[in-house]
Amino acid sequence: MLESVQDIEWMTRALRQAARGLYTTTPNPRVGCVLVKHGQVIGEGAHLRAGEPHAEVHALRAAGEQAKGSTAYVTLEPCSHFGRTPPCADALVQAGVRRVVVAMQDPNPLVSGNGIARLQAQGIAVTLGVCEDQARALNPGFVQRMTTQRPYVRLKLAASLDGRTALANGESQWITSAEARQDVHHWRAQSCAIITGIASILKDDAALTVRAVATQRQPLRVIVDSQLRIPLSAKALQDGNALVAYAQGDAAKLEVLNVMGVRTLHAPNGHGQVDLGLLMQTLTALPCNEVMIEAGATLNGAFLQSGLVDELLMYYAPKLMGDQARGMFALPSLQQMSGVHDLTVLELRQFGQDIRIQARLRD
Amino acid sequence: MLESVQDIEWMTRALRQAARGLYTTTPNPRVGCVLVKHGQVIGEGAHLRAGEPHAEVHALRAAGEQAKGSTAYVTLEPCSHFGRTPPCADALVQAGVRRVVVAMQDPNPLVSGNGIARLQAQGIAVTLGVCEDQARALNPGFVQRMTTQRPYVRLKLAASLDGRTALANGESQWITSAEARQDVHHWRAQSCAIITGIASILKDDAALTVRAVATQRQPLRVIVDSQLRIPLSAKALQDGNALVAYAQGDAAKLEVLNVMGVRTLHAPNGHGQVDLGLLMQTLTALPCNEVMIEAGATLNGAFLQSGLVDELLMYYAPKLMGDQARGMFALPSLQQMSGVHDLTVLELRQFGQDIRIQARLRD
Repeated sequence: MLESVQDIEWMTRALRQAARGLYTTTPNPRVGCVLVKHGQVIGEGAHLRAGEPHAEVHALRAAGEQAKGSTAYVTLEPCSHFGRTPPCADALVQAGVRRVVVAMQDPNPLVSGNGIARLQAQGIAVTLGVCEDQARALNPGFVQRMTTQRPYVRLKLAASLDGRTALANGESQWITSAEARQDVHHWRAQSCAIITGIASILKDDAALTVRAVATQRQPLRVIVDSQLRIPLSAKALQDGNALVAYAQGDAAKLEVLNVMGVRTLHAPNGHGQVDLGLLMQTLTALPCNEVMIEAGATLNGAFLQSGLVDELLMYYAPKLMGDQARGMFALPSLQQMSGVHDLTVLELRQFGQDIRIQARLRD
Repeated sequence: MLESVQDIEWMTRALRQAARGLYTTTPNPRVGCVLVKHGQVIGEGAHLRAGEPHAEVHALRAAGEQAKGSTAYVTLEPCSHFGRTPPCADALVQAGVRRVVVAMQDPNPLVSGNGIARLQAQGIAVTLGVCEDQARALNPGFVQRMTTQRPYVRLKLAASLDGRTALANGESQWITSAEARQDVHHWRAQSCAIITGIASILKDDAALTVRAVATQRQPLRVIVDSQLRIPLSAKALQDGNALVAYAQGDAAKLEVLNVMGVRTLHAPNGHGQVDLGLLMQTLTALPCNEVMIEAGATLNGAFLQSGLVDELLMYYAPKLMGDQARGMFALPSLQQMSGVHDLTVLELRQFGQDIRIQARLRD
């Protein structure tokens, strides 16, 4: 398909609308809509929160009577089913929209295409695929959960340029700069859950909440804690928005945790550790779209080996710590270079003197 | 000083001329000269090889009679002494040049300013400091040798994104891509000497020659080999353009090396190892301007701790190798984050999927 420059421009505006819901729409996708008539925007909107109106409804309300004869730019195929709100495809038809430009189909294979078919059945011209890559990038978790029943998993790390996350004695605060640490909060805010290991909790007692950016939603804190060693006073547990995954643990402690509102998941893997695959299945069921891992070398290595990691978000500080310091990934010793984990670099960026490398694991 | 846009433009052209000598002028500096009259270039040139004419002479020859009344742009203060060639300051005066724009003074504190004074004494207007930073960056080794009696030392490394240079069993070929490896040859070609450790020679038998870029000059290969374990068949020794620094060694082997044309330096540090400071003093005396270290974690760590490293040139391949693999710098275990080596990132660049980080050590 040849995309028109105009279509790309308006869809880019719709994508900006969609991004307004970056921190809040979960478990729904981020969606934006722009209504255009005679080269003017007559209404636009974004889906902001599950249960609240979809982007198309906000845009149609803003446009009112003018919607008749307009073109709608929507970042995701309009819905065709009655969920918590009536189908948006029907709303666009009723408002008299003449043409609908859609960035991407609904990723759910069971419903994908139905919204478009419903529009076309009513004689509305539909253009599909304008800015599709950007639209997908806006909802990696939703897309992946719908297509593979797994959340999109980002593993975040902060290290020195020689790949060290902490001194041998555990000291690490702060390797990276304030700018880099602030950026981490932006990614936390997009996540449905933050996973950490018990070692990190025992060492740093991190709250793992979103602080440096404004949001009304806090992600679920997930602690991988095979032996249920977590102190009941751990900061990450205090708001009750936490899940402790364990392999074996004291029944009385589990009782207390449950009374505190902390969810617990008994997920032994047969080797006294937590079954990370089962944990991810559980997070999918909650449902979680995007999940971020912020852990130490042991859990990082286990996740990497499990094949459950999609993306790496690595912050490097301009420091050298030496090979006695702690590494990034505990992995078994490889015998051949062919066994290493290959990445595809998505983006390279500087935050002050720090460097952020965003990469995907290559299959 | 307020630099005029015109002066910057012509000096930039002179800097491009100077860069023609990047691989060849050593131990002299890279210098370029452009002669401009009525907004036109009437002659330009570069110093290309020690003993051959200086940049000013090439430019004056090209301009001929037209040089009278022109402005000369020179990236380094014209010389005022009789060396292998007569003083360039005199040549500019004799040719009737009206004004001389100089990027930077001669870094040698004993002669710095004399060339400019000689020009001014003859009534020639001199502007100093146009594009000074770029001119300095073109000759880091020459500047440093003149001012501190040390070569400019670059430490080059290739690692995975988790800071690993080889598997535990030593396998490493090839971590980085062909593009990144080609770039390394560009830096080798600029260097007067390449330093490696005996461990690298025994493992890889690398020739450490410049191959991927065209040059008529090969840097001296320096092998740090405390116990004089180097095999006489080592590739790095075969063209005789090599120096072996040792702490203790067999007299007969030394004899053979010397007959092969290999230079040897007895530089024990009192702990059975090579005194790296003495090695650098020796390289200064040869003289060497820029030196590149391409070694393993042990020698890298020793150089880093010695305070002899100026710059790091780190290539990262998009791979993860795990913490059993070999690190970048063997350093003693630190107790506090305040003890880490801090860097200032100079440049960040991608070579295909690889990332190059050029950084300076912070004092």
